[in-house]
Amino acid sequence: MVSTHVLLADEGVLTTIPIGSFTTEAGAEIASVDIAYQRWGEFRGSNVLLIEHALTGDSDVATWWCDLVGPGKALDTDSWCVIATNVLGGCNGSTGPSSDLDGKPYGSRFPAVSIRDQVEAEKRFLDVLGITEVHAVIGGSMGGARTLEWTLLYPEMLQAACVIAVSARASAWQIGIQSAQISAIERDPLWQGGDYYDGEYPAEGLAAARRIAHLTYRGEMEIDERFGTSAQAGENPLGPYRKLDQRFAVNSYLDYQGAKLTQRFDAGSYVTLTESLNRHDIGRGRGGLNKALASSKVPTMVVGVDTDILYPYHQQEHISRNLGNLLAMAKLSSPVGHDAFLVEGRQMDRILRNFIQQSLPYATESVDGVEYRLGDEYII
Amino acid sequence: MVSTHVLLADEGVLTTIPIGSFTTEAGAEIASVDIAYQRWGEFRGSNVLLIEHALTGDSDVATWWCDLVGPGKALDTDSWCVIATNVLGGCNGSTGPSSDLDGKPYGSRFPAVSIRDQVEAEKRFLDVLGITEVHAVIGGSMGGARTLEWTLLYPEMLQAACVIAVSARASAWQIGIQSAQISAIERDPLWQGGDYYDGEYPAEGLAAARRIAHLTYRGEMEIDERFGTSAQAGENPLGPYRKLDQRFAVNSYLDYQGAKLTQRFDAGSYVTLTESLNRHDIGRGRGGLNKALASSKVPTMVVGVDTDILYPYHQQEHISRNLGNLLAMAKLSSPVGHDAFLVEGRQMDRILRNFIQQSLPYATESVDGVEYRLGDEYII
Repeated sequence: MVSTHVLLADEGVLTTIPIGSFTTEAGAEIASVDIAYQRWGEFRGSNVLLIEHALTGDSDVATWWCDLVGPGKALDTDSWCVIATNVLGGCNGSTGPSSDLDGKPYGSRFPAVSIRDQVEAEKRFLDVLGITEVHAVIGGSMGGARTLEWTLLYPEMLQAACVIAVSARASAWQIGIQSAQISAIERDPLWQGGDYYDGEYPAEGLAAARRIAHLTYRGEMEIDERFGTSAQAGENPLGPYRKLDQRFAVNSYLDYQGAKLTQRFDAGSYVTLTESLNRHDIGRGRGGLNKALASSKVPTMVVGVDTDILYPYHQQEHISRNLGNLLAMAKLSSPVGHDAFLVEGRQMDRILRNFIQQSLPYATESVDGVEYRLGDEYII
Repeated sequence: MVSTHVLLADEGVLTTIPIGSFTTEAGAEIASVDIAYQRWGEFRGSNVLLIEHALTGDSDVATWWCDLVGPGKALDTDSWCVIATNVLGGCNGSTGPSSDLDGKPYGSRFPAVSIRDQVEAEKRFLDVLGITEVHAVIGGSMGGARTLEWTLLYPEMLQAACVIAVSARASAWQIGIQSAQISAIERDPLWQGGDYYDGEYPAEGLAAARRIAHLTYRGEMEIDERFGTSAQAGENPLGPYRKLDQRFAVNSYLDYQGAKLTQRFDAGSYVTLTESLNRHDIGRGRGGLNKALASSKVPTMVVGVDTDILYPYHQQEHISRNLGNLLAMAKLSSPVGHDAFLVEGRQMDRILRNFIQQSLPYATESVDGVEYRLGDEYII
C-alpha cells in the first residue's frame, strides 16, 4: 500500500507539521497552523495508534504514559506505530495563543477552539502526512473528548476507539468549575485580557486555576489520606492570625502543583483549552447527545474511574448505555480520582491490553470443520 | 427554677448581647465582643433549642428554615424556645472583621477564629443571659461543626444534638477548596489585605469565591439537569471568541449567586469563617478524632446527604460509627447535594420530628405490671 511509504519523524523526536490556515467551528480563522507530534514504533500502514493527551498534557506520551507505551507494553511499539500530537491551541509545539502572528503572539487574537476543531486540525495533520487509516484512537479527559469526536467525525478512518474518563458533553458543573479557573486567570491584573506576552506572566492567576483544577483531578479521600489536617513542616496554620506562609500541608501541595504548572504551561493556552472543554458537546448539530452516541459506528471501549469528581462514573455509564457500538466498559477502582488513568499503571495496563485485544479481529480455529473463537491468550 | 426568669429578646427581634473581651483558642484577644441573636417561642427553662447557622447564614432561622421552625412545625415554637445566634466573626450583628475597634473596622486586626471559639462565644452569650440548660443543639454545615464541638465542650448542658452535613474535622479536600475561595478574595486588589473598609468593596473576589463554593453546595447532577450546556437567554457562549458577556446559563446562575452574596455579606467575615472551617478538627487536643468522638456523651443524631460534594456521606458515616452516644442516623436522598438540609423541607421535617422525638425520654406504659416502650405515635 502507498501509505506505508509515509515519511514520519524520527522516533520520539518532536516534529512540527504545517497544515495551513484553519477556520474554526465558530467561524474564526487562524492564518497558519502548525501541529507538533511525536512518533514511536514503525509505521506499517494500518498499525497507527493515535493517542490524545489531556488538558495540560503534550505529545510526549512515552513519558506521561511510560508504563503503557513502549516495546512490549500494552501499547506495544514493537507492533504499533504510536502517534501523539500536541493539541491545537496548546503550547507544546502546536499553534496556540502564545504562537506568533505578524511578529507577535496571538494573545487575545487567538479564537475559541472547540474539541471538534482540535480533531479537525489533527485530521488535517494526518492528511498532510498521508496517513489514511488509524487502527485506534485512545485518550483520557480532554483526550477522551477528542477521541469521542473522532468516532463521530471520521468513523471510516478508525477500527476502534478507547474513551477514558470523560463525558459526552460538558456538564453544567464542569462548565462552572472550569469557568472558575478561567476567571482566576482573567482576574489576574497581569493577564491583560490575554495580551500579557510583552509584560509579566500571570503566574498567580494560573496557579490559582490549577489549584482548583487539581482538586477535581484527585479523589477527596486520597488527598485526605495523604494530608488530612497536617501542617506543612515548619509552618503553623493554627496561629492567632491567618498567614499565607503558615499553611496546611494540603495547601503547600496545591501551591506546588500551581507553581509547577506556571513553569511549563502558557496561561493563554490554559484558558483556550479549558474553554474547549466548556464547549465539549458531541450532540451539537447532531440531533442531541443520545442520537449522536447512537449513531456511532466505531467499536468503542469506555473507561471510567469510580472516584472521579470531575467526570463522575455515571457519565461513562451514560456514554456506554447509549453508544451505537460499545466494545467494552471498564472501571478503574482507585482512591486517586480522575487522574487514575494517568497513575494506576497496573490497571490501565490490563485495560489497554484488553482494548487492543478486542479491537483486533477474533482469532478462530477450525476443528473438524467447526469454527471456534479462541480465548484471549491465543491471540496475544 | 430560677432560670425560667431569664429575660429574653422579643420574639424574632435581632438583639445584641455584649459578652466582654474574648481570647481565641490560638491566643489572640478581641477587646469587646457582641453576640446577636433571635428567639422564637416562650422560654421555660429546659426547653431551649439552639440552632447553629451555616457559613453565610444568620440568626434568622425562622426565615432560612421557615418550613421547620414555627408553631406546629418540626421545631415547634409552641413547645420549644428556639434561639439562634449570629456566629462570632460574622457580619449579621455579632462582632466580626467589619465591626469597629477604636473607631474603625477591625479588618486585618480581627484574629483567626476556630469553631471552638465560635462555641465558646455562644456559651458566654448563654451565660450572660442566664441560660444553663439547652435541650438540643441543631446545626448543619458550619453549624454542624459547632454542634459537634458543643457536644464535646459542654455536654453537661445538653440533652441531645443533631449534627447535619458535616465532618468530624476538615478534610484536606475541604481545606483545599476553601482556601481557593479565600485566595480568590485575597487576590482581589481591592481586598487590601483585609483593610478595604475605607475603599471599594472587593466584590469580584467575593463573588469568585462564592461561585466556587456554590459548586460544592449543589449536586452536580442537579445543576446539570437545570442548566446542562444551555446558553443564557440572548447570549451565545459558542461564538468565535470567548466573551465574558456571552455565557452558558450555568455561569449566569453562578454569577447571580456571587453577586447576591456581595450584597449581603462582608468579605472579611467570609474569609474569617471559611478559615474557621479550615481549622475544624474535633480531635485537636483530645487524643485524635476517634477518641474525641468516642468520648461524646450527648445523644447525637447524625444526618447526611447522599449527593453532598462538600461533606460526602462517608464523613457522616465516620462520625456515626465512632460517636460515643449515637442517637440515630439519617440520610437525605436528594439530587441537590449539600444544600439539601436547607431545601428538602419535607425530608428535613421528618428527620427533625424524629430527632425531637428521640431526644425525649421514652414513653412507656405498664400493662399487668410489665413496662412497655410505646411507639412514636403515642408520644407525639
